[in-house]
Amino acid sequence: MQVAIVVYPGFTALDVLGPYEVLGRLPDTEVVFVAERPGLVVNDLGSLSVDAVATYADVSEPDIVLVGGGAGQQDQMADDGPLIEWLRAVDRTTTWTTSVCTGAFVLAAAGLLTGRRATTHWAGLDMLTGFGVTPVKDRVVIDGHYATAAGVSAGIDMALILAGRIMGDEAAQTVQLIIEYAPEPPYQAGSVDTAPPSVVERAGRMLSP
Amino acid sequence: MQVAIVVYPGFTALDVLGPYEVLGRLPDTEVVFVAERPGLVVNDLGSLSVDAVATYADVSEPDIVLVGGGAGQQDQMADDGPLIEWLRAVDRTTTWTTSVCTGAFVLAAAGLLTGRRATTHWAGLDMLTGFGVTPVKDRVVIDGHYATAAGVSAGIDMALILAGRIMGDEAAQTVQLIIEYAPEPPYQAGSVDTAPPSVVERAGRMLSP
Repeated sequence: MQVAIVVYPGFTALDVLGPYEVLGRLPDTEVVFVAERPGLVVNDLGSLSVDAVATYADVSEPDIVLVGGGAGQQDQMADDGPLIEWLRAVDRTTTWTTSVCTGAFVLAAAGLLTGRRATTHWAGLDMLTGFGVTPVKDRVVIDGHYATAAGVSAGIDMALILAGRIMGDEAAQTVQLIIEYAPEPPYQAGSVDTAPPSVVERAGRMLSP
Repeated sequence: MQVAIVVYPGFTALDVLGPYEVLGRLPDTEVVFVAERPGLVVNDLGSLSVDAVATYADVSEPDIVLVGGGAGQQDQMADDGPLIEWLRAVDRTTTWTTSVCTGAFVLAAAGLLTGRRATTHWAGLDMLTGFGVTPVKDRVVIDGHYATAAGVSAGIDMALILAGRIMGDEAAQTVQLIIEYAPEPPYQAGSVDTAPPSVVERAGRMLSP
């Protein structure tokens, strides 16, 4: 199984590296970090660079594609852009085409989610309708062979769900145990439904362009 | 505030990049990926390389140090090795010296945890006693200015706890909401106490050298 993880300048690290840690530990699975150009790709915070070892042209039939979000995602959405064109091409043969956070907008811009149900980061959820996509306020949404996850850390949950569907529950649970994913957040502020109003307001301000 | 995140060949990505996504989003915070030599450092799975922009010599007074685990950790534990010597030096002035997963053994090998309480990946917990450290089966253990987290994904919880202590609850909660950290694991297999016995056995086999 080949998993292609897209990285572009301004990607959010955990969007892609959370799922990576899950999918990369499945048996007989190769993960390739793919980008428009090979070499170092800098994230949204500016302090992490990861090495893209392949270009889109190098990866023509991945089994799974994963697109994360991040401040740089807007620049990837041009209708004739290389990422959009590649996604349209590889999606024809993928087992799963997936997104985390605002990566859903890249899939939507490629037309892949038209008429489908999907999720994205809470701050952007309503905007999916502008792409003909039905927003669903769930942590992970599966519609056809498309899986979309909510903001950033939700990609870990999505990857475990996919791992179970692909390799069976026991394989997925084994990865969950190996990464000791029994979360204990010290606060209940991970959702707009449970975070204090002052925190929702502050986060909204920080996320505004 | 400067956060130094150690990377070495064979590191586990999520050990360090989970906490990175939290700490890197705090106000007025610089994160630097530090290694023995600058340049690309390959992880334990072999498919991710991150760029270490600084050597140990370049980073002499970080406020926070974070050491993750991974298959390569054993090679970092030599008593006169560069990482151990650097940790002993910078620990004198850090606000927090921290580890995730088997990174605790690196801190222990440096003598920093002697006589203290700490945690690590479930598969290694008992081995802490060999270093004069009291193993504690908690997700995050704080003793003095040392914070240790359990396996891999536990670093996210640790980083949120530290964020709260350093910048206050509202700042930490804001980061939690931005990364939408309201986990919904599809299985309850993240702990040896809740995983099916067959999964515990399978994970144990996979983790054996």
